[in-house]
This record gives sequence, structure tokens and C-alpha cells, in this order.
Amino acid sequence: MIDWIAFDADDTLWKNEEHYINGRDRFLEILNKYGLDSGDIENFDQFEVENIQYFGYGVMSFVLSMIEVGIEITEEKIHPSDIQKLIHLAKEMLSHEIEVFEGASDLLEKLSAEYPLMLITKGDLLHQQRKFAASGLAQYFRAVEVVSDKSPGVYEGILNRYNIEPERFLMIGNSLRSDILPILELGGWAMHLAEHPTWSHEDDPTNHLDQERYLEVEGISQVLDKMVEVDLLSK
Amino acid sequence: MIDWIAFDADDTLWKNEEHYINGRDRFLEILNKYGLDSGDIENFDQFEVENIQYFGYGVMSFVLSMIEVGIEITEEKIHPSDIQKLIHLAKEMLSHEIEVFEGASDLLEKLSAEYPLMLITKGDLLHQQRKFAASGLAQYFRAVEVVSDKSPGVYEGILNRYNIEPERFLMIGNSLRSDILPILELGGWAMHLAEHPTWSHEDDPTNHLDQERYLEVEGISQVLDKMVEVDLLSK
Repeated sequence: MIDWIAFDADDTLWKNEEHYINGRDRFLEILNKYGLDSGDIENFDQFEVENIQYFGYGVMSFVLSMIEVGIEITEEKIHPSDIQKLIHLAKEMLSHEIEVFEGASDLLEKLSAEYPLMLITKGDLLHQQRKFAASGLAQYFRAVEVVSDKSPGVYEGILNRYNIEPERFLMIGNSLRSDILPILELGGWAMHLAEHPTWSHEDDPTNHLDQERYLEVEGISQVLDKMVEVDLLSK
Repeated sequence: MIDWIAFDADDTLWKNEEHYINGRDRFLEILNKYGLDSGDIENFDQFEVENIQYFGYGVMSFVLSMIEVGIEITEEKIHPSDIQKLIHLAKEMLSHEIEVFEGASDLLEKLSAEYPLMLITKGDLLHQQRKFAASGLAQYFRAVEVVSDKSPGVYEGILNRYNIEPERFLMIGNSLRSDILPILELGGWAMHLAEHPTWSHEDDPTNHLDQERYLEVEGISQVLDKMVEVDLLSK
């Protein structure tokens, strides 16, 4: 019924969002010194999304946005040493240890015995490649695609290049916006890891999810059972 | 004699280094206000190279390094409005118009009639993809690879994936370090555009270039003649 299974990486196979939450907390601590609080950066997410057109997705984009917003909302009062702290935060986020979700390695081992697996991830190219290499999961994947965006067009390009029919393709990920909706739009299978932590921008609930090829589980530990349930895997 | 021709992009097909030179000039103008001059940032290139391990190659890496160095050498006296200027410089550099070198389009048109062409470029993924799309040159390429580094191992991975024998592969580019030496090491053909502007880090003159498969021309306009001369193209 399917020929390939693709996985998202950040917040699907390993922890990611918690590093951004921690980063935002550190930003907030800095802003507190200038009499500002979380109410003053409630539009930060939107600002960050607007900067994606220049900086793309990833840590560098996140930190450049914090510096830009920090200067703006402190009315240029932020001390350069605090900006230095944000750059050091970037370096820390870009070199932290990878924490693979429990069960991910076992799942990939089992699935890779039945299907060729592909990783499709977006963000800073170097950082994504380094996380993949450090994850210990590379052995299970036949192909890796780092993309700057996860639009239907980008997925279509990948499916064409690998000669995969959309209806014989399953994508598994935590982001409705990036991993699920574009695949359903193309006619593919998509499995949502609904309880994995997810950046609000990636959360795009719609009412179009009553489709036959949409599958939902809480997390990694339920993927195999769900696949058996819908006959994508024998028991 | 060869099956594929690959091109580097920045400073091979379109102008790039001049935007960085202009960026450094703008940085220097800012530093001048604090009584500093070019002598105070003579190690900037080295600093930038050290940051590649975190930020990779590209505009975001360049600008984050300028902010970090700017804070350090002004002893935290740099005004936040000057840091804001550097972030705006990043956005400008990431969205400037592409200037394709004269003759590049004609060259690619002729070569693509005889050989499949591949683009192999390093840097910010989103920026590289956008420059490629805006260049008007995409129609001539069969394949595009954006990589985080141009080591022999990275090239080897590409050649394996496309099933290309190194000795039947020609790479054309301006950077000895990134486009020429790794290919010669693998046993491939490499043509150096010796008079194209090149970042000092990419300039890696050695005495290993007396190899049969090393070709040198001044620039784009001489590529075809050189290929005819060494029998890689019929007149």
C-alpha cells in the first residue's frame, strides 16, 4: 500500500521546541532588566514569522529576531553585553546535545526493515545535518532532504525526484502545518504525533482532517500499533 | 570523456564577494565612529572562519560575526542602533538583486545541450535557493545540491548518489579550496576561474596543481575555448 515512509526530525524524532522555550525565557530575563515583561513581546512570534522570508527557519533566524526586537522594544537601551548573551545563546543552541525521543530508535529499526525511510526536515542546513549525524539514527534512513520550507510544491519536488506516487507515501510528524496538511493536499498518507511539543506557528488546526489517509496518534510509542491497525504493517 | 559538469554558484555564475566587501565597508564605517579602523579588525576573517563551525557559511554567519566582534572590540560601547544597522544590512544582503556574470547564461545554454549540468553551492539554504530561482539560470540545470561544506567527502557523497565516476566529472568554480582541490583529490576534472573575485578564505594556492585534470582560465568567457582545447567539447 505504501512504498516510502518519511519522518520529520525536530520534535518528531528528537527534542527541539524546549530549546526555543528556554531561549525565549532567557530573552525574557534580559528584558526584565529593562522593565519589560512577556506582555511586551506577545507579538514576538509574529515578528519571527515575518523574518522567515529573510532568515528562513532555525536558530540563527530566532536569535537575529530576538536581537532586532530587543533593540526595538528597549528603545535602543539594551546593553551590548546583553546582545552578546543572545549570540552566545545561539552558539549554545547550535551545539547542544541531541535528545532522541524514547522509542524512536526502536521504531525506526522496525520500520526500516519493511520500508525505505526518508528524513525531511527544515531549518539551518548545517545544524540539521549535524543533529542528524549526532542522533545515532542515520543508519535507518535511505535518504535525507533538508528543505527551506515544507510547502506542497517542495514535497511534490521530492516525490518526483524519487519517483514516488503520493498515495504510496506516508509522512510522520508533529506539525500540522508542515508535515500533515501539505501531504494530505497531495493525496498522500500523513500521521500526526499530536502530543509532541510544537511551536504555535506549526500548529494549524483545520477541519479538513476527516480524510481517509489522515492518521493521528499521541506520540512515537503508538506509531507501530496504528500502522498495524490500518494495514500498513503486518503484526 | 565526461558525463556531468557541475558549477559553483557564488562568484562563479553571479556576483557575491562584492556584497561582502561592501558589508565590511559598512561595518568599518560604524567602527570608525568609535575610533577604530581596519587595523582593529584585521583578524575578522579568522574570527568569521572560527564561527563557521556554529553558523556555517553565508550572510547570517557573516552578520552575527560582525555583531559579536563589534561588541568585543568597542568594549561594549557600540550603540544598539549600530547593531540594528548590521541586522538591516543582513536583510539587504539576503534580498539584493542577482547579477549574473556576462556570458554565464550563453555558456550554460551551450553546455547544457551537450552535458547534464549540476549546481553545487554552499551557504544559507533559503538564500541559495532564492538566488538560484532569481538568476534565470535554473532552466539549464538538471540537479541542484546546496551543501554546508565542500569537502572531498561531501563531493564523494554527491557522486555516489548520482552514480558518477569521479574521472568523468568536471567541476567549474572560482574557489581553489572549495571547488578545485577536493575534486582533484577525488580524481575528477576541475576548472578554476582564476580571475573571478574570491574571498581570501577560499583562496588556497598549493603546488599540487600541475595535474593533468586541472584546467585554468581567467573567467567565464574562456571556458568553452578551454573545453574545446582539451577535447571535452567539439568545436
